[in-house]
Amino acid sequence: MDTRPIGVFDSGLGGLTAVRELQRLLPGEDIIYFGDTGRVPYGSRSRETIIKYGRQDVAFLRTFDLKAIVIACGTVSTTALDLLAAETPIPVWGVVEPAVRAAADATKNRKIGLIGTQATIRSGAYERMLAGLDPEAEVLSGACPLFVPLVENGRFQPGDLVVETVAAEYLAPFRATGVDTLILGCTHYPLLTDIIGRYMGPGVTLINTGATCARQVADILTRRDALAKPGKAGVSRYYVSDSTEGFAQLAGIFLGRDVGDHVEQVDIWRY
Amino acid sequence: MDTRPIGVFDSGLGGLTAVRELQRLLPGEDIIYFGDTGRVPYGSRSRETIIKYGRQDVAFLRTFDLKAIVIACGTVSTTALDLLAAETPIPVWGVVEPAVRAAADATKNRKIGLIGTQATIRSGAYERMLAGLDPEAEVLSGACPLFVPLVENGRFQPGDLVVETVAAEYLAPFRATGVDTLILGCTHYPLLTDIIGRYMGPGVTLINTGATCARQVADILTRRDALAKPGKAGVSRYYVSDSTEGFAQLAGIFLGRDVGDHVEQVDIWRY
Repeated sequence: MDTRPIGVFDSGLGGLTAVRELQRLLPGEDIIYFGDTGRVPYGSRSRETIIKYGRQDVAFLRTFDLKAIVIACGTVSTTALDLLAAETPIPVWGVVEPAVRAAADATKNRKIGLIGTQATIRSGAYERMLAGLDPEAEVLSGACPLFVPLVENGRFQPGDLVVETVAAEYLAPFRATGVDTLILGCTHYPLLTDIIGRYMGPGVTLINTGATCARQVADILTRRDALAKPGKAGVSRYYVSDSTEGFAQLAGIFLGRDVGDHVEQVDIWRY
Repeated sequence: MDTRPIGVFDSGLGGLTAVRELQRLLPGEDIIYFGDTGRVPYGSRSRETIIKYGRQDVAFLRTFDLKAIVIACGTVSTTALDLLAAETPIPVWGVVEPAVRAAADATKNRKIGLIGTQATIRSGAYERMLAGLDPEAEVLSGACPLFVPLVENGRFQPGDLVVETVAAEYLAPFRATGVDTLILGCTHYPLLTDIIGRYMGPGVTLINTGATCARQVADILTRRDALAKPGKAGVSRYYVSDSTEGFAQLAGIFLGRDVGDHVEQVDIWRY
């Protein structure tokens, strides 16, 4: 048994798609979430800046006594996981490995698509991981730099002409190549599931990286007997680097539940 | 005569549209530009965060011995100009007043449109300034939160289906109301001049806030006899908070000239 909370962070709100699955699978766990809303998006910034921001995010979370940290951010997971894990004395998990395992399990034609931020695609992290797991699988990857601004602006409803147009542009090469599995390599993208799913068609499996990561975290903690005491409901607390105003409404959509009044602002530059 | 450089800053690259006009009007002036590329965009953040970032931008520029600071950022100009000017012992100028004067001069039907970031529209700064100048002019305003991500991603070419779709959505109410003057209340928007101009039609005057601001700066410095020595070509230096990699190419488009190797990275959090 380990009653310490799980720490989770993201550049903004996307990581809440992982928190949502953690809360569903492990309702007894306490969760500390940090969303860097004062500096979102990360995915178009340089490697050096992403590493600096990721270090500060981890340093803030480490002011709590945590059992593990989940990088629920595709950009930081692909750009800085090894480095952050090496620097941190508690386990640090990212979204890449569980997503690649899920994609390798799901694909039948071994053509896997990957969409993500510019930094995620530039990193080559998914391709390296998959090459180790299934050297014969092909990966087609493409950056979708406008998806995060669209989602953070609440533009993810099917029928929204702008997001449908952007999605069609980004996804056309994947449909043309006939991938049967598409990794949503950014934790913001699950909010676009309906739009992406409809465009790609029912034969394509979409991998939600936040959710697959949460499932792996649940597995590991269960195997290690590191879950909190059963029977007690966990508490989630949310921290953001911009004002807390306006956070609750959009966060509720990502989470599928109310964040309540457990939201505080943090000056991330102090870490 | 005043040989000190002019300081200019923006959340990212948009302020270069003001620098471009300054360089054209005052080729003898030295310019220090700061673009906060590690934290762009500002326009969707809270007032409190915009003030904090603006203060750091000014503090960095003040490490140089400047004759004046130009806030070539619609978001900071509308949200924090008074405060930053009051705190700073050299003149600090923003984009609002010159744009409002130009719009009041240009309009015939006294229906003026204003587009900008969410923070700019929320501030009400343009409406207040115009009410003092021409109480009978009407202002119709609307936020265009996706314009900055589109422009910073290089998506500003006429014919680009995504930006054309976004522009049509944002501008439809302005066309319907029959404004004859439209203030581009964000220094990124001049890159969308062709798209916006074609959509609004030839009867609508577009006010480029960066350029009108630069013209006012040139007027004031000339009147105060505060220009650099004539006959000497000015030097412009550029500082950014993200990596300098990739800056030069996009900056060249904003500036209409090569930035050369006068680009350095600065750790804005130290200010």
